[in-house]
Amino acid sequence: MNDRIAVPLPKSYLLLNHGPTVLVSSTHGGRQNVMAAAWNMALDFDPPKVAVVIDKSTLTRELVEASGEFVLNVPARGQAALTLAVGSESGRGMDKILKVGAGTTAASRVGAPLIAGCLAWLECRVIPEPHIQQTYDLFLGEVLAAWADPAAFSDNRWHFPTDDRRSIHYLSGGSFFATGEEFKA
Amino acid sequence: MNDRIAVPLPKSYLLLNHGPTVLVSSTHGGRQNVMAAAWNMALDFDPPKVAVVIDKSTLTRELVEASGEFVLNVPARGQAALTLAVGSESGRGMDKILKVGAGTTAASRVGAPLIAGCLAWLECRVIPEPHIQQTYDLFLGEVLAAWADPAAFSDNRWHFPTDDRRSIHYLSGGSFFATGEEFKA
Repeated sequence: MNDRIAVPLPKSYLLLNHGPTVLVSSTHGGRQNVMAAAWNMALDFDPPKVAVVIDKSTLTRELVEASGEFVLNVPARGQAALTLAVGSESGRGMDKILKVGAGTTAASRVGAPLIAGCLAWLECRVIPEPHIQQTYDLFLGEVLAAWADPAAFSDNRWHFPTDDRRSIHYLSGGSFFATGEEFKA
Repeated sequence: MNDRIAVPLPKSYLLLNHGPTVLVSSTHGGRQNVMAAAWNMALDFDPPKVAVVIDKSTLTRELVEASGEFVLNVPARGQAALTLAVGSESGRGMDKILKVGAGTTAASRVGAPLIAGCLAWLECRVIPEPHIQQTYDLFLGEVLAAWADPAAFSDNRWHFPTDDRRSIHYLSGGSFFATGEEFKA
């Protein structure tokens, strides 16, 4: 896994502010899993919070509800095939992280693993809101720790070093947008 | 305002799936307003739902809570200065839509106006969830109608005609990313 640097918690919203698709990793009771989630957003600055949709049919849902934890991993364009793969098949009956060949490393504040090779990682604890979890598949989390690949994000700014290390935005049918040019309004 | 085409409701999530920054427009009791919101996401396919964060300090919050309606407008790069302006000042004490010179047109299912020149529009009715509105400034909406500029989105696909008509993703400090290149994983 790349070196990583800590992102100050009140700046961790910057990792999600531009709307990238993320990977949600989770673990509980000896099982681990990862899924893709285009439906995520920052929810607050300080303490930082996030929101993410986790469908009832997924193994991730079961692991997140049981453990009360998850990690949002921001994948790079070079991981688009992996992102599509973990968004397309269920982790039930196999270890999807192993199957897709994703490396992992230990998180600092949660049990869920960090997916290797990503651009950034947000370690989150579920803020229990059973009604919206059940009704809308909507999970809120407090960000306990945040990390970034310093080649892509440092000093509170994204600066993608290569096209392969840009963040990505899922569309449908296997298509993504790469994050494009930065500009000032 | 450009011509617009109806987007089939179960496909309206595609307007937000790649995480663009949106403008939230609203009206109530003879007042109207618009604000920028990077913190938005799709929440369900059919019936389509969305989630958006609307801070307690904003006039938009007051108008959305009073009317139970809002529109999410997807602005183009050519509207980045407008997006920044409506994200930077309050609508209290003035008509911000008039002040920034944004044209509007009537929506079909809600009172809130559609901001002219945008790429797409989602007309939404608030799904009342007072606890999460109060605790997290988080608003859920059902999409009642969706529209797009056919030059930028048709047949359920984005196809930005020019760089000025790409969608945008707010970062901080007046900086945005343009939506970048489309690719297949």
